[in-house]
This record gives sequence, C-alpha cells and structure tokens, in this order.
Amino acid sequence: MTDQNVINIYRNKALVNFEGKDFLGQIGVDSRIFNALNGGGISVGVISQQAIENGISVLVDEDDAQDAVDVLKKEFEKEKSEGHVSNIYSIENLSVIGFVSDNYNKILSELQRNKIFPLLLSQIASAGRVNIVVTGNQTEITKNIIETEIYGKPKTVHLALIGHGNVGGTLVEQILDSAHDILNRKRVELKIVAIANSRKVAFNKAGFGSDWRQKIKYSQNESSVQSLVDFANEHHLENLVMVDNTASKDFVKNYPIFVENGFDVVGSNKIYNTLPIAEYRNFRKLLEKNKKKYLYETNVGAGLPLIDTIKLLHLSGENITRIKGVFSGTLSYVFNNFSLRNDKFSTITSEAMEKGFTEPDPREDLSGNDVARKLLILARELDLINEFDDINIQNLVPENLLSVSKEEFLSRLEELDVDYQKIKESQEPNHVLRYVGDLHGDLQKEKGELDVKLISVPANSALGQLKGSDSIFEIYTESYGENPIVIMGAGAGAKVTARGVFGDILRLSETK
Amino acid sequence: MTDQNVINIYRNKALVNFEGKDFLGQIGVDSRIFNALNGGGISVGVISQQAIENGISVLVDEDDAQDAVDVLKKEFEKEKSEGHVSNIYSIENLSVIGFVSDNYNKILSELQRNKIFPLLLSQIASAGRVNIVVTGNQTEITKNIIETEIYGKPKTVHLALIGHGNVGGTLVEQILDSAHDILNRKRVELKIVAIANSRKVAFNKAGFGSDWRQKIKYSQNESSVQSLVDFANEHHLENLVMVDNTASKDFVKNYPIFVENGFDVVGSNKIYNTLPIAEYRNFRKLLEKNKKKYLYETNVGAGLPLIDTIKLLHLSGENITRIKGVFSGTLSYVFNNFSLRNDKFSTITSEAMEKGFTEPDPREDLSGNDVARKLLILARELDLINEFDDINIQNLVPENLLSVSKEEFLSRLEELDVDYQKIKESQEPNHVLRYVGDLHGDLQKEKGELDVKLISVPANSALGQLKGSDSIFEIYTESYGENPIVIMGAGAGAKVTARGVFGDILRLSETK
Repeated sequence: MTDQNVINIYRNKALVNFEGKDFLGQIGVDSRIFNALNGGGISVGVISQQAIENGISVLVDEDDAQDAVDVLKKEFEKEKSEGHVSNIYSIENLSVIGFVSDNYNKILSELQRNKIFPLLLSQIASAGRVNIVVTGNQTEITKNIIETEIYGKPKTVHLALIGHGNVGGTLVEQILDSAHDILNRKRVELKIVAIANSRKVAFNKAGFGSDWRQKIKYSQNESSVQSLVDFANEHHLENLVMVDNTASKDFVKNYPIFVENGFDVVGSNKIYNTLPIAEYRNFRKLLEKNKKKYLYETNVGAGLPLIDTIKLLHLSGENITRIKGVFSGTLSYVFNNFSLRNDKFSTITSEAMEKGFTEPDPREDLSGNDVARKLLILARELDLINEFDDINIQNLVPENLLSVSKEEFLSRLEELDVDYQKIKESQEPNHVLRYVGDLHGDLQKEKGELDVKLISVPANSALGQLKGSDSIFEIYTESYGENPIVIMGAGAGAKVTARGVFGDILRLSETK
Repeated sequence: MTDQNVINIYRNKALVNFEGKDFLGQIGVDSRIFNALNGGGISVGVISQQAIENGISVLVDEDDAQDAVDVLKKEFEKEKSEGHVSNIYSIENLSVIGFVSDNYNKILSELQRNKIFPLLLSQIASAGRVNIVVTGNQTEITKNIIETEIYGKPKTVHLALIGHGNVGGTLVEQILDSAHDILNRKRVELKIVAIANSRKVAFNKAGFGSDWRQKIKYSQNESSVQSLVDFANEHHLENLVMVDNTASKDFVKNYPIFVENGFDVVGSNKIYNTLPIAEYRNFRKLLEKNKKKYLYETNVGAGLPLIDTIKLLHLSGENITRIKGVFSGTLSYVFNNFSLRNDKFSTITSEAMEKGFTEPDPREDLSGNDVARKLLILARELDLINEFDDINIQNLVPENLLSVSKEEFLSRLEELDVDYQKIKESQEPNHVLRYVGDLHGDLQKEKGELDVKLISVPANSALGQLKGSDSIFEIYTESYGENPIVIMGAGAGAKVTARGVFGDILRLSETK
C-alpha cells in the first residue's frame, strides 16, 4: 500500500511529447502509441493526453527518452510525412512528484505564486493522488511547498530587508522577538534571509538570528539588486517580501525589478508614492499584473492606522471631504512647545535638534516638504491626480536663510525669533499655533487643494490639545458629518514606525 | 485550429476507472487497455493515468461507458480474479471543460473555494491547454469561474444580507450607490442576492436594485437558513458572504452552518464574539478549517478602525498594556452634556431618548452591558480568555428600579437626579464625568481586568474633550509609551456602522 502521507519523488524522468492535429482521438491511435512503446520495451509512467486537443505526453525514464522518440517516429513515419503528426520530441531532466492532498488547488496556487508551472499534472479525484511534473532544479522548492500544505508545515515568508538603520534595525529586533509567537499562533515563519545597506548585503538562507549585525558587518558581498534576486532564485525561496526602510530616492527605481521577480514590497520609504502620477499609476498596474502587493501604512503617521482606513472608506463610497492634521512629529513638538512656553522659537528648535527629533539640517523639517509629501500620498489614495508641485507650501525658513550653509543657518537661527514671536502674539485669545497639512476643495474633481501651512487654532480643539511630538489626523466625511474621525498618537519614531512596517508584513502574510 | 479563447464544453461524458495495485505501470498493461477499448469501437478522450500509483481513468462518451466497462472487465478477467485488478467502473453525467489560460492555478483555487473539485484534470504546459472533468450540474458555475479569469470578467461577490433595519437598510443603499464604481475600479461586482428578516426572505440571482424594499415586502418566502443555503447551491453562486446586521442572539447559532456551506461571515451583530470562550474559539477553528473569514470591525466603535488596528499591533508583538475609552455613543452624549450643562440627569437622559440615541428602554444602555460586551470583544483580540461574568460593571440604574416595568422606570427617572448631581458636584475642579470601559492589569496573563464604570477626568484630557455622541478609544502600548494611540469619532449610528460593514465586505473581496 502507498503511504498516504508520503511525497514520492521520481527523478531523472523525461516527457515524450507527441503533437498532431485533427488526428489524435481517432480510434486506434492510442493503441498504436502504446503498442509501439511497449514493443520498444519502454515502461510508461504518467500519461496525460489531450486527445480532443492537439497533444499527448508520455512520461518515461530519462534513459529511455531517445528510444521512445525513435520508436514513435518510426511508427508514425507515414503520418508525419503527411503532416498529421507535427512533432515528436522529448524534454529531459524532469521530476515527478506524487502526493495525496485534499488541498490540491491551494498547492498549485502556491506553486504558481512562486513561479513554478508544472509541465504536466494529473489528478484523479477518486484515487486522491496527484502527480505533477516539474523541471529537475525546481524539485526541492516544489517539495517544500507541498510539504507545507500537506503536513501543515508552517508557511515561510522570506524577508529581504533593505536598510538597517534606526527603523530597519528596530524592525529586525522586533521580528526576531516575535517570530516564535507568530509561528505558533499563525503557522507563519518569518525568516529574514537578506539584510542590505547601500554598500553591502548579507545572506542567510536559514534566517538571521541575534548576531545579524556582526554578519552584515563582516559580509564580503557588495550590495546589488541583482544579487538579491539571484539569491532568491538560486535558493528557490517562496513568499518573498522586499522591505525598504531606506529614504533612498535611487533605490525605489528598483521596485519594479523586485515585483517582476516575485517579491511583494513593503516599506516606510515614501519616495515612490510621490513620484509623478504616471509612474505612480504604472507601478500599480505592474503590481496588478504580477499579482503582487505594495503596502506602505507607515508613509504617513508611522504606525497609526491611517492609510488603510482612508483606502477602505474611499473604496466603500464614503465621500471624504477633507483631511487635515499635524503630519510632522518634529513640527508638532516645536509648535506644541512654542505655543505653551515662554521660550524663543530658536530655543525650542535647538531643543528639538538636541533631542534628535529633527533632520541633521532642521531646515529639511522647517521647509514643509516632508509634510507636503505625506499630504500628497493621502490625496492620491482618494484617486486625486495631484503632483507635488500643486502643493501650496509655507516654508518656515525665511528666504534669506534658504541657501546658506547648515552651519550658518544654525548660527543665525535667532533671526527667526522676532517673526514667530509676532505670529504667536497676534493670535486670538486661547489659541495655539499648529503646522498643518490640509487637503480640501471639491475632492470629487481630478485634483484637490493641498495646503501646508502654519495656522492658529483654539487651544481646546482636537488639534489644539495635541501633546509632545504626537501627530493628529482629522478625516472629514459625509457620513461622519461635522465631527471627523480623529486618529492621534506618536506619528514618528523608530519603534512605532518599525511596528507599523511589521503590521504591513503581517497583512501580507495573511493573504499568502 | 483551436481558438485560443474559446472554452470548449463536452457534455454527457463518463469516466471509466480502472483500479489495481502493483500491476499498473507494468509494460504492456496500457496497450492492453487501449487495444481492448479500441477493439470495442470505443473512442477514448482525455486519459489520465497514475501508472506509478494505483489507478487509470479514461474518458468516454456516456453512451459508451457500459461497453467500455464490459470490454475491460472481459480483457482483465483473469487479473481481476487474481486480485491484481480491484475494480472497473464508470462515473456518468460528466462534462469536460477545456480552456487555455496562463492563470490556470488561480482558476483551480477559485473552483476549490467554491467547493468544486474536478474529478480529473490534465494540463500540458507545452500545449497550454487544460481539460478538467466536473459533474454535469457543476458545469455552469465552473464555466462562469473560468470565464471570469480568462476574459478578465469581473469577479462577482454574492451577498446575503440578514436584517434590513437601520444598519442593514442603509448598507443596501450604500452598496447600490457604490457598486458601479467598485466594479470599474476593482473589477469586483457586488451583488445582493438575498435579503432576509426574521420572517421573510427575498431572492434575486441577478442582484437587487433600488426596488428591494418592495421585493422583500411582497416576498412569499418564509425566512430560513436552509433556504439561503439551498438558494446559493441551486444557483451555484461563488464568493458567498453572509452579512448579519441583526442583533439576534438566536441567529448567530447559524454561523457555523453558513461557514460549512461556503459563506464568509461579516456583521455588526456582536453576540457571537461574547459567547463563552470555548464557543468563540471553536468557531475560529471552524473558520480556519473551512478557509473562511469572519470580520466584525463594527462590533466596537462602528466604522472606527479599532479592531483591525488592535489585531495587527498584537500580532506584530506590540505589548498592548491598556485599552480605555468611551465605548457607548448614547452614554457619551448623556455624560458629555450632563457634565457641561446645568440640566438634570433625567432631563438629559430623556433628551437622548427623544433623539433616538437610546434603546427603547434606556436601562439597556444605562446597565453598561453593551459597553461590557464591547470591552470583552477587545480583550479577546488580545488572546485573553475573559468571560462576560469577569467584567466589573457599574450599573447606572439604581437597584430598586432594575426590575420595574419600562413605563414605571421612565416615570420615576427623576429619582436618579439627586445621586448623579452629587457625583457631579463632588468632582475636582475642571473635571467631567465619563462612562468608560477599561481593560487593564497584566495583559500577558490569561485574563485581564475589565472595568465598566463612571469616572471623573480632567476636562482638558482627551477623554474630557469628547463631544456630542462621539466615542473615543485610547490604546496604550509599550512602544507608544505614555501617549496612547487615540481613535475618536462617531462610534454609533446607522450610516457609519453600515459603512464599516461595507469596509469589511471590501476587505473580504480583496482576498478573493
């Protein structure tokens, strides 16, 4: 008896293909084929015939392949010369994998997702047993995928992490901490098989452990997209996810390569979503075509559940009429403190720098470009086709300090104090300053109005109540009326951003 | 030439199965089978053989099936008596469906999800053409599914809506409003094929339109779970979703029947998630086994993105340390107003009744049971095994009014005023009253502490700032530190609840 749980693998097989038209399916042809093979002393394995179509395939031992082709060519010499039989040939170096599963189609769809297309498959429901034929070098990965399904072996998700700085490094630690629990609870094994920075890449097919920093430090491999793709192919890794936690403008150009090579994409890098709308949309089409996903919840508001919420509301037909909020943790800190305390603007900005809340050159935060990028990303979730240049950005840096060196800017920071003190004091009573992104206008049109600016709001409003370096987002919709959905909390920081990226990885794993 | 885009259907076919062990695969057996059939004048169609295993199947015209069995029985009479051939028989009333697709496995997985398991399938990668054999009555649904994939026909999701009151009725309208857009943008066609209340059910295979209220009003069909399941089976509907917008304690008992019959489940009904933990977990296992999903984002906070956020944070290993908030829109309204205005508690409660914010008997709101149920649902998302009885609930109704009639309670409502006035006045300065749910304690243990109670909070805190009948949820986690994630907005109301249910339907559709 065949053990129901065994996966049988027969290597070194060959397919003999017999092609002809308006010919097969005639009474007697089958018999002639098998008689001929029989006469040649050739044992025939799995047979699949498309008699009502144009071909028949017969499985034989690789050693018999040439003989089989020869005897069939001889038997059908006449029909071949008459054009009824168009081709007789063999494909070698194949494996037959036989197994029993009540979840056969799931296995096939897993194989397909991993770009394995069996040359031949045959299933008899009553027998319950299935045979598929794959090329020799796909044998191992095919076996792994089948085992995963049959034995309930946990599904493995292979992660290639690009960038291991603040966010990326924290993500590695979070994944290593939780991998065991996730395996137990969801039967999903998260394996970090590659970690790369702009110079080097380290690989570990078995998955990195707590010594990953050493491994990348001493890695001799130069970083390249091709080496990542090659590694995945060589080791036949299934369920590939590329995670981009860099802020690189150049690296995003590689996203399409990853998608075409079977990777889903997750990341905190927000560059791709702010490229010209044509590129933005082309990438979506590429994803759809390749049945891959791109998740980027952390592009706006770090781990706060913002993008997914907006996506679902929009798709379910909810008329989103306005999105407004404090998008920058840095500028949240600056204006929350400047509004309440009796300190100069320059004092608080320097303080934010010292706490590591700002970019090395704080003008990058004060320029409003980061807020603008986030606002643009939300606008595009509503199918608006705005470009970055459409955004009205109030740059908080005075014009005469825009192009000086960083050092000079920092030394002249106090020049900003007079103006901001004036703005602060000219507010109505019980008002505070907030630097906001505001998407408004008629959002049913092709483009919305995108403003990034400093405003004065009542201290007891939701925006006015903001604390620390928290972000806040108000989503106004038709059904929710005057009181918006408000989502508030730490909208920046390595830990919460990494956790948000982790959430996206888990979302993806659920669909696998 | 075969048209690459045509789906060929051959009806009235039969499979002749030939079973034996340690016998097939021997040289010569194939030839004998085909010679015998050939000799009987029987044309053989698709052949699938598991020669290295235990069976061979041959496809013939239904009319030839008995002859084929007879000639094979005769040919192998000796082997049958010796036990080498165990069985020769036919399965009739079959169809062969032949098609070309580069997304073959997707089709198979769609078929499987719809509980169609081909009796036989054969594919030759080089020929590109696939044949599958299904039972006659599955021919149409199989053809539909294949067409959906091959021609990019939109995927149809079939909805059975239970309950068409406030939330259910609004949902129907929202779906009818947005269906066209969703079809265009996501290639998903949402069809409402059944609408039921506790007495009647109306069916429409083509999908209900704007006259759905008339149709259910004049429907003659008595409502029953079996009739819903039968309808889906009879019409071979794929992608079934049962949507429960009732508050019925009895109806949830049917969820397992729906899941076993191929339905995913979505709903605002929160009863199932508050059943004893054993039932709660068994249902999860049933879902997993049947690869079905149950989504219920609106169980807590209506359309606010609460449950999904908590799920992802928890699964990604974020240590959620506390969840606290105003869970009831009704009690939000009552205490927001009572805290700020100089009106009596009874005045404001009556006002809430008149505005339709309360249940017909406001004691159902004031009892705190609804808040407790929501709190329990969140606790269970964290894998806590609390039961409803574990919750400490402060019932806002004095004991002597608990068991009087609704009319008597309403007439004696003013008896509550003295106590609540006292509570209000004994607060610290600038404090307000809030009726909260609070999940705390060591949430790494098996059970957490669940409190539902009236508390006094600073007016300028997030809870204190709450307005109207909004809900607010504070999620405290390790990474987010002292400042929680805050999610705030309308947490009740037909429109936002229906929109939330709609969001769940779309989430489900994405995985199909």
